[in-house]
Amino acid sequence: MSRTEISKYGEFGLIKHLTEKFKLTNSSTLKGVGDDAAVLDYKDKKVLVTTDLLLEGVHFDLIYVPLKHLGYKAAVVNFSDIYAMNGQPRQITVSLGVSKRFSVEDLEELYAGIKLACEVYGVDLIGGDTSASLTGLTISITCIGEGEKDKIVYRNGAKPNDLICVTGDLGSAYMGLQLLEREKLVFSANSEAQPDFEGKDYILQRQLKPEARKDVIAALAEKGIVPTAMMDISDGLSSELIHICTQSNVGCQVYEDKIPISYQAVAMAEELNMSIVTAALNGGEDYELLFTVSLDDYDKIIGVDNVGIVGHITKPELGLHLVGREGEEIELRAQGWNSLD
Amino acid sequence: MSRTEISKYGEFGLIKHLTEKFKLTNSSTLKGVGDDAAVLDYKDKKVLVTTDLLLEGVHFDLIYVPLKHLGYKAAVVNFSDIYAMNGQPRQITVSLGVSKRFSVEDLEELYAGIKLACEVYGVDLIGGDTSASLTGLTISITCIGEGEKDKIVYRNGAKPNDLICVTGDLGSAYMGLQLLEREKLVFSANSEAQPDFEGKDYILQRQLKPEARKDVIAALAEKGIVPTAMMDISDGLSSELIHICTQSNVGCQVYEDKIPISYQAVAMAEELNMSIVTAALNGGEDYELLFTVSLDDYDKIIGVDNVGIVGHITKPELGLHLVGREGEEIELRAQGWNSLD
Repeated sequence: MSRTEISKYGEFGLIKHLTEKFKLTNSSTLKGVGDDAAVLDYKDKKVLVTTDLLLEGVHFDLIYVPLKHLGYKAAVVNFSDIYAMNGQPRQITVSLGVSKRFSVEDLEELYAGIKLACEVYGVDLIGGDTSASLTGLTISITCIGEGEKDKIVYRNGAKPNDLICVTGDLGSAYMGLQLLEREKLVFSANSEAQPDFEGKDYILQRQLKPEARKDVIAALAEKGIVPTAMMDISDGLSSELIHICTQSNVGCQVYEDKIPISYQAVAMAEELNMSIVTAALNGGEDYELLFTVSLDDYDKIIGVDNVGIVGHITKPELGLHLVGREGEEIELRAQGWNSLD
Repeated sequence: MSRTEISKYGEFGLIKHLTEKFKLTNSSTLKGVGDDAAVLDYKDKKVLVTTDLLLEGVHFDLIYVPLKHLGYKAAVVNFSDIYAMNGQPRQITVSLGVSKRFSVEDLEELYAGIKLACEVYGVDLIGGDTSASLTGLTISITCIGEGEKDKIVYRNGAKPNDLICVTGDLGSAYMGLQLLEREKLVFSANSEAQPDFEGKDYILQRQLKPEARKDVIAALAEKGIVPTAMMDISDGLSSELIHICTQSNVGCQVYEDKIPISYQAVAMAEELNMSIVTAALNGGEDYELLFTVSLDDYDKIIGVDNVGIVGHITKPELGLHLVGREGEEIELRAQGWNSLD
């Protein structure tokens, strides 16, 4: 692949070059890239705003993360925060800090991933900022979304007896990371070694190219279900349950045998001699949704694809517990009831 | 001053600690920090969004920039982009990447500056993201504002015969930077040396604690003036004039003797044997407004404080020119008609 130095473009030329292939699709986007600020029109909808900062060496390792995947993931994790409010992502701004190590082609790859994510989720790129960095790659994305009045879901609305629901499966993204870290070690010891990824495509995809739960948010709306509390699972089920229970002033009872886990994640955990339940509770980066619904919605929620009931909300004095396979109760802790280290 | 390690707080504890003293003042802010996304209500107003990424060693030097000033400036430069659309800044998100070099007290200083800026300009802090960084300090701020329908001003509306206006004075922030760089050199040669800042308070303030032109935007509204094009002067008058003329497809004629320059900036330029006109045209970081108004608004605009007319818009085929004191015409160039190096 050819290498074009970023200095060939000025800052404005570079932004134009990277963003001109993005099309605007949302009627709320009045003006995108190219002025002091973007202009949005929300009429009687509520506006949602979320932001994420990703730093090389802290949040991603370019040794095993392709730039296109990184761009896709950086966008999708922001969309996930908007869905977690029961909203729809509509616009993003992307700011980059880029060291001399990166070429224009590298940034094109990154933006190709962002563009794909924008197309898949129907989001418009509306602005950003690109500047030199002394070290590595910094990505800051802000996402703006919209929500229907009275249908925005916060973290503080869970009530005793509500059902606790989780989408998809948990722990796969973490097991994918463990696999990538292992292969990186093997490669650093022997650069001739080829990575062994056979039969592990699902956990790799969960780590490298996660999706946000647009489908479940649409299905909930179709069934007329408004969760009482919701957030996305970026830091692990345990940590997110603590957030919802603390902010809602309730307790919870979650059943180990109800936690959804993929076959590949179980196999990987066995291979690495790790606890898959710990990975599911504390692994993070699954970007599934954790939400609570009223018991009255039980008949409706069991008909929604990709949603499982993992427990129920209790009175606050009962505390936060995981019920193990033998019926034993284990207190949930933010850093994991069993350290991952 | 005592030093508290950031690790004493978790990520969520730290955000809470740093943001709990911020009060929400805008009715459009329905929900701020503490959920997956903030929730805003804009009814029939248009929403404006701008974002900036600041990297240590590239955009600021902590050797001579106090953290409180840095926080203030980081917020104000975003407000300036919203005023440059003829809007009002209402909310910001602040994301930080922080290396171990920084203590909790350091971040408190930074947030004290952000808080002061929010109070002065009536803006709410609504969210953000704080994470570890391997090297230095990274600050990413996104600002959301609102504009009246039909009164938002873009860069592309300038017409031939429009008057070109500039607020405040230009070049002072750049001369302040030159002074700080000189004193840094002196200090590195002799650490006993005391900086010589007497009679230079204005240019230092312009560099370290710039203000956004809330006052002029309010005055224009009061007089019923809607500029035809507008942007803020962050990269120097020359570069910004080129943006407006290119996007509006017009030319311009700007008069050297009309460019507003402060006494302290002139004195500093003489001391350093530099051209003050070059500094004013290309220095940047003044965060003044550059705008064009219809000739019909001449009587109104001359009554607005802190606004000067520096030239007029021409047909595109006449090009972009600075008219010197002797009547000579010099073509405006983005990198400066006389290199700053």
